[in-house]
Parts: sequence; structure tokens; C-alpha cells
Amino acid sequence: MPFDLDKLCGDDLFGIQCLPYGIFQPSDGSKARIGARLGDHVLDLSGMFGDAYLSASSLNSLMAQGRGTWSQLRGRIIESLERPRFRDSVVRNAHALNDVHLGMPFDVADYVDFFASEHHAANVARLFRPGTPPLHPNWKSLPVGYHGRAGTVYPSGVPVKRPWGQSASEGGVAAYGPSGKLDFELEVGFVVGRTSPIGQPVTIDEFDDYVFGVNLVCDWSARDLQAWETFPLGPFTGKSFCTSISHWVVPLAALEGARRPLGPQNPIPSSYLRGEVPPWGLDLALEVAINGNAITKPNFRDMYWSPAQMLAHMTVNGARARVGDLFASGTVSGTQEDQLGCLLEITKNGNEPITLSNGETRAYLEDGDETIFTGRALLSNGSMVGLGEVRAIVA
Amino acid sequence: MPFDLDKLCGDDLFGIQCLPYGIFQPSDGSKARIGARLGDHVLDLSGMFGDAYLSASSLNSLMAQGRGTWSQLRGRIIESLERPRFRDSVVRNAHALNDVHLGMPFDVADYVDFFASEHHAANVARLFRPGTPPLHPNWKSLPVGYHGRAGTVYPSGVPVKRPWGQSASEGGVAAYGPSGKLDFELEVGFVVGRTSPIGQPVTIDEFDDYVFGVNLVCDWSARDLQAWETFPLGPFTGKSFCTSISHWVVPLAALEGARRPLGPQNPIPSSYLRGEVPPWGLDLALEVAINGNAITKPNFRDMYWSPAQMLAHMTVNGARARVGDLFASGTVSGTQEDQLGCLLEITKNGNEPITLSNGETRAYLEDGDETIFTGRALLSNGSMVGLGEVRAIVA
Repeated sequence: MPFDLDKLCGDDLFGIQCLPYGIFQPSDGSKARIGARLGDHVLDLSGMFGDAYLSASSLNSLMAQGRGTWSQLRGRIIESLERPRFRDSVVRNAHALNDVHLGMPFDVADYVDFFASEHHAANVARLFRPGTPPLHPNWKSLPVGYHGRAGTVYPSGVPVKRPWGQSASEGGVAAYGPSGKLDFELEVGFVVGRTSPIGQPVTIDEFDDYVFGVNLVCDWSARDLQAWETFPLGPFTGKSFCTSISHWVVPLAALEGARRPLGPQNPIPSSYLRGEVPPWGLDLALEVAINGNAITKPNFRDMYWSPAQMLAHMTVNGARARVGDLFASGTVSGTQEDQLGCLLEITKNGNEPITLSNGETRAYLEDGDETIFTGRALLSNGSMVGLGEVRAIVA
Repeated sequence: MPFDLDKLCGDDLFGIQCLPYGIFQPSDGSKARIGARLGDHVLDLSGMFGDAYLSASSLNSLMAQGRGTWSQLRGRIIESLERPRFRDSVVRNAHALNDVHLGMPFDVADYVDFFASEHHAANVARLFRPGTPPLHPNWKSLPVGYHGRAGTVYPSGVPVKRPWGQSASEGGVAAYGPSGKLDFELEVGFVVGRTSPIGQPVTIDEFDDYVFGVNLVCDWSARDLQAWETFPLGPFTGKSFCTSISHWVVPLAALEGARRPLGPQNPIPSSYLRGEVPPWGLDLALEVAINGNAITKPNFRDMYWSPAQMLAHMTVNGARARVGDLFASGTVSGTQEDQLGCLLEITKNGNEPITLSNGETRAYLEDGDETIFTGRALLSNGSMVGLGEVRAIVA
């Protein structure tokens, strides 16, 4: 693959405006280390700059350096790409993506999953609790969330194994077997790069000091297991078997131009959920494809709660955030039929299967199905920045 | 403090039959490392044996060695205490507990909290859902559980800071402020010392290969925050501010003599929850004191679900267990009024305050209150083995 720096820095989704971070291992078998993606290449940052924290096999070491270093490093990469005198170094440290192994980008400390789309919450309620109000009384007062399993967050490409577990059967007796309702949930994740003091909430205005970057997240869900187990303590085995994330964490700085005000919040939330600026989301055009069929296209700007509100709520009780924490938005769904973020909503819990281009139908995922999430941020300057894909086959 | 080896190895709760592991830092400022408690002393195991994994500042390195090493190390410690020729080495490596700093014993990977006491589950339901069946339909089919926050598990002695958050107020509008219903939950924890393959459940008969040891756990709970947030995804900020664990992890081998058959399980659970031997619990006599007043004395043998069933359920879906995982039993409550494991049950959600010896009353915990959990295992040979205490002041 020829390395054409000018082309790579151009209007590619992963050009100079994006520069997401990840972990790669070159084909020569040398150890995994931190790289930045540039187009269809990855730049070996430890080779380019030599800082010790860049030789680590997870992004945690970079993240722990703090926001000042995040900003400086991004500046140094951009400078290297723009100035002719650095060109030799860039070329020498560029590896074609096809030639490297991409690894788990960071060690997940705690994983929290929110439920921040009103459209998703209401759609789910209409399916499971028809005739009752679609939102619980708490829903518009706080971003509802729960802790997921950090140890089963895997990078894109790791197959998702159909989970076994219990579900409800006729007569109220539990059935035990493989899930018959395996679903994806399209989510956006936020990676925390700073540890907060014990007992001290992260305020909503400190978001940029704490969040290192953004990724795509697939919250795999076994709907039958989840439905049976979920009362009264919430989802457990129906979610904890696997969560997939993209190989690439897009720096928050790359997404500044994608910030957009969210819709109105009524009632006005508690003081700790209000900041100096009105709640903002990100204009992220997302897409899910199953076996090559694009089946839904939500946009992340349609969420009710903002990422900064999620982080403030997660720590309002004094829970510390840690380097490596991942919090995800919950399923991203919009108002339209082609903007629903999971099969539960798309197929009405399997009752209205979709038809793929080869004529097959899907109520939920079948063994061998490949799901791919992609996304791009729409910047206010008219250009676009990519999010790393999430891809997994049901095994 | 004089070091009397014969006395220490005698019938002390932390004598030669117990030998729990922890992390200590000597007063000379040398680095924290792995020790074994013997009476009111701690033995410097790296000093006694020299193995590299004993110099680590968390038990994870020892746990990762596997069950064979766990067994050998315990045998070597016991041999050192029993044979006169090792006495000099033991004495040289013994530090009085008063002279050392005890640290966080292990790095928590994932933290899962169960709900495995039928008496607790039924008592809670009677308080919050009077007139409905006390157990959800799933309760006797699977050990209900959820993920807690690993990053806020702290060792005994770290003060618990009263959390702020939202609770329900009159008119259904959320109130924001400090919790007015801060509670403890007395639990028993199990520390996982082995990582399982991705996608492969840990069977119920593999329990002894995976569980390194046992500790006491306080699942601090803000009942007002919990009640408001909990639907539909379960507890979040009402629990995630703090979980306290003892400094000491008692090896599973020390508790073999405390195994007891559990009561009958009806209906018979799914096949993955049945093993070669009937479900067993541990005869652990537990106690909670507030400001020096012993207020409750549950026994862990009164649980419905067994520890092995909890681990099997946690991984039935292929979720891997990891070195450092902690799973806790949920509140341990018995059938009697003096066997209830949390203030919610003891004071009937604050409606029937308890009176302390100084005449003060408590509906829930007040600032400055000190809670202490203690426990001892009753072995079939008639002797007893201690569990490390959990102690924290509300700050």
C-alpha cells in the first residue's frame, strides 16, 4: 500500500483532523504500543517521539499524563504531518493497517452504561409495558445508568459468542439454554483519562479535563435472559457476556466542531446537572450494517442527556472516576423508523422481522451474522471525522 | 508487643488454622508487600520465602500463580511455624500489627453483588411492596445479582463519606442533597484468583480452582438515592460511592471445616446450578456493632444460594472470571430479629429506630458513627477461625 502523506492528510475520515489513538503490534512481532491512525496507516508514536509512555501496550499510560499532554501530543503529531522536515520520520514510522495487529485500546477500569435516549427508553417501554407511561418518574430527573462488566469489554473483531442462560418459559418455570434473542445496541462511549479524588464529584464543567476521547460501543444484549433476570436489580447475564468497542479512541479535541446544543430538558434538572453552557451533544451520524445491509442510521445529537451530565451523575455521590473508565450512552435511537438503535426496537421484539438483500429475514441475530457499526462526526466547518468501526460475528 | 509464637499459633482466631493474606507496609517505609496475619502480628512472606510474587503490592500476583501455589504456600507457612529450625526466620519476619500500615489487599477486577438471602429479599419486599408476593418469580430460579463499582471498593478504615444525590420528594419532583438514609449491608465476599477462558462458563464443581479466599464486605447503601433511581436498571449511585472490605483474605483452605449443607432449594435449579455435591454454605457467625453496640448477629449458613452457585451463574453466559474479581453474597439475614443484616430491615426503613447504650437512637447512620463488622468461622473440629474486620466511620 503506497504511503501518500498528502492524500492521507486530506479529506479522509481518518485524516489530520481525526488522528485517533489505538494499540498496534507490527508484523515484525515487536511489542504492542501506542499508535495514531492516519488514513489506512498507523503512525508509531513511540518511534516518532520516544516518550516512554508511548511504548505502553494500553492507552492508560498516555491518558494518565493528563489533558496538557493530550493536547501537546496531538499538536506534535499535527506539526509532524504538516512540516516537510518531519516527513522522513513520519514515513519511517507509518505501518499499513493491513500489516499490523490492532489490540485492545485501553484497560477498562469501570464500565457504566446509561439509558440516555428518550426515544429508545420510550420505545422499549411501549413494547414491554404497553398502556403505562413510557418513562419512569425518575427518567427526566437523572440519566439512568448501571454498571456493566469491565472484564468482558473486547475490541472490534472478537467474535460474540451466543450466551447461554435462563429465560422465562410457559408456566413460570425457568428454561435454560442458548439465548434466542441476541441483539446489538448501538452506543457511543466516553473514555475517562483522569482519576478524581475520592468523595469529590466531577462537576459538569470539568468534563474536558476528564474525558480523553470517544469510541463506538456495541452493548450486546440477550433479550430473553435480560427480561427474566432483570427484576429487581437490573441487567446482569443478559449483558455481561460481551461488550465490543472500536480499536480507536477519537480525541475529544477532534470532535469540538461536532458539539451541538441538545433539545430542551423539562423539568430543569438538579443543579449538579447544569453547567456554564447549555447541555451539548455531538453530531455523530451512525450506521449499523448486518451482513452488508445497512439497517439503521441514528444520530447521536438526538439524545436527551448530555455526556457531561452522565459523568456528573456518575460521580455526584463522590464515586471517583478512574483512568480507563468507560461510560456509554445507552442505545442511540432517533424519532424515525430508520433511526432505531437495536433490533428490539427495529423488529418490535422480533414480531416484525427485517428482510435482508438476499431475501433472508432477521428477528434477532443468527449464528454467523456479522454486525458492523460505523460513524462519522459532522464538524461545523463542513468536514467530517471518522469513528473507528465495531465489527463482530456471532459465533 | 512480645512475640510468643506458641501462643500465636494456639487458639487465637488468627492462629495457625487461619493465616489470612493481606498487604502491609512496615514502619521503616519500605514498600508494601504480601503478608500473612498470625494473631496480632503479620509475617513478611517475601522475607521468609523470597519468591518474587510475594514482593508485589497486591495479592493479585499471588492469586495468579494458581491453586497449586496457593496450597504450597500455605503448607510452607504452616511448616515454618511448626518446625523449630524455622523459628528464627519467623521471628525475624514478624511485624506487630500496631507497627504496620495495612493496605488494599487486592486490585478489584469486577465487583458483583448478589442478593442470595431469602430472608433479606423477603423482608425488603415486605417493606417496599406490602401485599405482593415477597419474592419475584425469578428469585428461586437464579441467584439475582448485578455489577457494582470496582473503583470504589476501599479497605477497612477508609471513612465512608455520606453521598449526595437525588431522591424522591413530595409531588414527584426530585430532591438533591445528602442522603438521609445511609445504611450498611453485612455481606460475605469471595475473591477470584484465576482467569477463565472467554466464552466458557466456570462450572459449579470448579469453585475451588477459582476462588482464592473469603472476606467480609460492607455494601454501603443510600436507601433514598437507591429507591429513586433503581427502576428500571437497578442500583447505581445509591451503592457506587463506597464498598468496604477487610484487609484480610482468608484462604478457602482455612474454611473447609466450616462447609455446611444449605437448606433445600425448591424448585430444583437448572442443571448448571447443580454440582457433584449438594449446595453448601459456610458456618460463619457474623456481628455488626455501631459505636460499640452489637446490634445484629446473622450467620452465613442461612443463605439460600451457595457461593458456588453464584460463581456458576455469574459466568453461565460465557463471561470470563478474572484474577481479582470480587463477588459478594448480598445482605446476610436470618429468620430472627437479631439476625438482620442491615438497618433497613432492623429499623423497618427507619420507622422503628434502635436505641444504643448511651440512650441515642438510630433510624439510619449519622455522621461520626463507626460501624464494625466481625466474623468467625465455626469449624467441624470445634475450633474457630477469624475473618478480618471491616470498620468505617461516616464522615
